[in-house]
Amino acid sequence: MIQLALIGIGTGNPDHLTLAAVNTLAQADVVLLPRKGKAKSDLLDLRRLICERWLSAKANIVEFDLPTRAAQGDYQQNVRQWHDAIAHCWQQLLATHCPQGGRAALLIWGDPSLYDSSLRITERLEAAGLPINVTVVPGITSLQVLTAAHRIPLNAIGAPVHITTGRQLREQGWPDGIDRVAVMLDSGGAFTTLPNPEHYDIWWGAYLGMPEQSLMAGRLDRISEPLLQHRQHLRDTQGWIMDIYLLARRG
Amino acid sequence: MIQLALIGIGTGNPDHLTLAAVNTLAQADVVLLPRKGKAKSDLLDLRRLICERWLSAKANIVEFDLPTRAAQGDYQQNVRQWHDAIAHCWQQLLATHCPQGGRAALLIWGDPSLYDSSLRITERLEAAGLPINVTVVPGITSLQVLTAAHRIPLNAIGAPVHITTGRQLREQGWPDGIDRVAVMLDSGGAFTTLPNPEHYDIWWGAYLGMPEQSLMAGRLDRISEPLLQHRQHLRDTQGWIMDIYLLARRG
Ligand SMILES: C[S@@+](CC[C@H](N)C(=O)[O-])C[C@H]1O[C@@H](n2cnc3c(N)ncnc32)[C@H](O)[C@@H]1O
Ligand SMILES: C[S@@+](CC[C@H](N)C(=O)[O-])C[C@H]1O[C@@H](n2cnc3c(N)ncnc32)[C@H](O)[C@@H]1O
Repeated sequence: MIQLALIGIGTGNPDHLTLAAVNTLAQADVVLLPRKGKAKSDLLDLRRLICERWLSAKANIVEFDLPTRAAQGDYQQNVRQWHDAIAHCWQQLLATHCPQGGRAALLIWGDPSLYDSSLRITERLEAAGLPINVTVVPGITSLQVLTAAHRIPLNAIGAPVHITTGRQLREQGWPDGIDRVAVMLDSGGAFTTLPNPEHYDIWWGAYLGMPEQSLMAGRLDRISEPLLQHRQHLRDTQGWIMDIYLLARRG
Repeated sequence: MIQLALIGIGTGNPDHLTLAAVNTLAQADVVLLPRKGKAKSDLLDLRRLICERWLSAKANIVEFDLPTRAAQGDYQQNVRQWHDAIAHCWQQLLATHCPQGGRAALLIWGDPSLYDSSLRITERLEAAGLPINVTVVPGITSLQVLTAAHRIPLNAIGAPVHITTGRQLREQGWPDGIDRVAVMLDSGGAFTTLPNPEHYDIWWGAYLGMPEQSLMAGRLDRISEPLLQHRQHLRDTQGWIMDIYLLARRG
């Protein structure tokens, strides 16, 4: 039997690891670390640092190349095929590095529940009949690091909140009957598609939890343009960007 | 100057503390611990255990009685008055126990961003001109412990998710254009008000992260009744309950 732990590691601050994550890492025999291409090497570096700090001396770190997702064609189908390919890859790695079973771990950015595919991939391994037991160790999400950095609540008192993607906000517009929307996975400026930007406040953050962390907040009509310029500048300077924001309809 | 840290402590499992939370606690001079009445003494016990384990020997633990919220009358107004009363209470405690400034901490259930009033209360302290600097240390939310325990993602691929309260689900019904809704603060069975329960799956959890943790999942029409009975039984046995669930519209 292979014990496979999906460990949420937070989004850049190594101190956002939980004690449960530290304990699980200390007991791991093998950690699978995806290489993700040059641009994202900062992210791999955090994973390496976490491994150095918390793995036992006898643990085995296995770096692997993550299959890439087809860019052309149907999005949902590409994602499914990509998950199949990753499942195949994990299966082979586990067979090679845990032939007698043991404790394997994957370090998941943020929390495994939020816009992350690991659970869909382990589902495939279980469905394929692999002798595998999956556990999830929750981690701090980028949304929580955003609200913590701005020191704001996610929801208004007793009111709902909506978590969505940049693509959805562009395509579906502002959801009905909701005053707060958190947006992730925005390739840039989905908020510019909102009519009446003067009706919204925005709290934005990039590289949250990292030394490069950058925050902006204000009335959307006032900071939309400077925010887009700032984002472009950061992206050019760092070579990559990850950002997230909360929008609130004004009083 | 008073440094006041709102520390998210997760929802029952002491190992869900982050390293950042541990570090902040280790440096605290004063921790304010609300007493919350007998029923919730389990929750206070977790806070005491965390303090024993992580505070320095010279730190001061100050237990205090949390003002109660008026049950009659306008909900939003009662909540505002209640927050005013708590702000007044914290202000006096900080003045008494940090007369020369220092590092104070509050242990916040789950994460301070999610259906929690601490940030609205510290806002009042800042607005009143207190020499206070508030920081937030994010913690694992009950929603993450729910998805981790069931090993499910919160969102479908690229799709939005809605976080709401039992009251909202009862009063507003299922939100338009959404397939996944997480429900918190349900006084019991708000899901029974959904028409066509056969169209939904539910993943439910109570006392998440605690030794008493209890999980149920299935098609809503099939488990709605047994779930309500189970919940009532737990509530009778323990004297209190905290539960949360994720609903998903079926394919
Ligand atoms: C594939 S999702 C993974 C989310 C992750 N599982 C979590 O819990 O935060 C990636 C998106 O998360 C957000 N994100 C992740 N890390 C971030 C960071 N450090 N700063 C800002 N946004 C971040 C961005 O919106 C990014 O597009
Ligand atoms: C006032 S809110 C506080 C939420 C908290 N800030 C968090 O991050 O989870 C209380 C609600 O959170 C949920 N909750 C908190 N702790 C829980 C637990 N251990 N098990 C199940 N639900 C919990 C329940 O829905 C409860 O009604």
